[in-house]
Amino acid sequence: MKKCVIIGIAGGSASGKTSLAKRLAKTYSSTNSVLIIRQDDYYKDQCDITMEDRLKVNYDHPLAFDNDFLAHQLRELASGQTILKPTYDFAQYTRAQEVEKIEPSDVIVVEGLFILEDPLIRSICDIKIFVDTPADVRFIRRLKRDVRDRGRTMENVMDQYMNTVRVMHETFIEPSKRYADVIVPEGGKNEVAVDLLTTKIDSIIHTNVL
Amino acid sequence: MKKCVIIGIAGGSASGKTSLAKRLAKTYSSTNSVLIIRQDDYYKDQCDITMEDRLKVNYDHPLAFDNDFLAHQLRELASGQTILKPTYDFAQYTRAQEVEKIEPSDVIVVEGLFILEDPLIRSICDIKIFVDTPADVRFIRRLKRDVRDRGRTMENVMDQYMNTVRVMHETFIEPSKRYADVIVPEGGKNEVAVDLLTTKIDSIIHTNVL
Repeated sequence: MKKCVIIGIAGGSASGKTSLAKRLAKTYSSTNSVLIIRQDDYYKDQCDITMEDRLKVNYDHPLAFDNDFLAHQLRELASGQTILKPTYDFAQYTRAQEVEKIEPSDVIVVEGLFILEDPLIRSICDIKIFVDTPADVRFIRRLKRDVRDRGRTMENVMDQYMNTVRVMHETFIEPSKRYADVIVPEGGKNEVAVDLLTTKIDSIIHTNVL
Repeated sequence: MKKCVIIGIAGGSASGKTSLAKRLAKTYSSTNSVLIIRQDDYYKDQCDITMEDRLKVNYDHPLAFDNDFLAHQLRELASGQTILKPTYDFAQYTRAQEVEKIEPSDVIVVEGLFILEDPLIRSICDIKIFVDTPADVRFIRRLKRDVRDRGRTMENVMDQYMNTVRVMHETFIEPSKRYADVIVPEGGKNEVAVDLLTTKIDSIIHTNVL
């Protein structure tokens, strides 16, 4: 019987976890053998909350996420079921109407800030990875990205970083590193780590074919 | 042509680097495809130094090792040559008369405190691993081992740890973690990391057979 392997990738903001996930999936893009699930798509549905209240929510806190639903859908995928993955409307701070049909695959890469922080998601992951990048490097990447791609001001990025991102990182993300099976410095730019992981993925897919 | 892959494993005293190296080699013990080289065998030859002076040497310092010779022999092995590996007389604090004939292999695992600290050895390693285990756990393992296997007293182990082991760790070993491609918590007991690495070794050996 086919065995689905779930690779969890956690790490701080701008640590390189998304780029690592993409590197792992890219090699298999023609085969649909490797699927990426992002924790960001599982921000809580806030349709019952006013916009005023939505703006008060700390979106860098684990409680902003519907992790039980994420865990539930990961289990469904792992048992060979198709899911309807939620999508998120970042402008409206709530779940969007659209869902995305996702077919099961040999390997699921699930990535997000709190993947190793949540006990349920952690227990579902077969390989637990923490992408570890120095805090100053992460801040600089975030500053560059948010100013360039999200139209934020430097002051705005600095304030958010000092007031919530940094505190949440120290409180929830950094301590979750202790649950990692493997710690990968620098994420997707780490060629040796990418090679180790893609070799493992090759072997999973090959075993499933046999 | 056969390609030899060198896996370097560094980490603090009693971090689990030797147990990790043994786990990697064990699977292939019947085939001689994976060879372990220990930095401990490359302590400097001190035949020209009096015993009094030998006792003054800090054996937890990188300069206690003949790393150039280790690097030289690693290169010889990697280029397919047989080497005569030195052995060390720990009672006499100098190189022993005996040498060990070592045949080249597909994979060389080289493990020791300063494998990632030395720029030359580091540059030779294809996969650089740092075994990361909390300092208190490492001390407890070391205390247990030195009292049980080496007939040391608790006081003696504590003194050595506080006076040299700990300082050398903070000065040379911990900073060398930044050169690691992959950080492995807990060493040989880390089943997921062992699996990732043995899968890679499988693939190297398989490629060399083709």
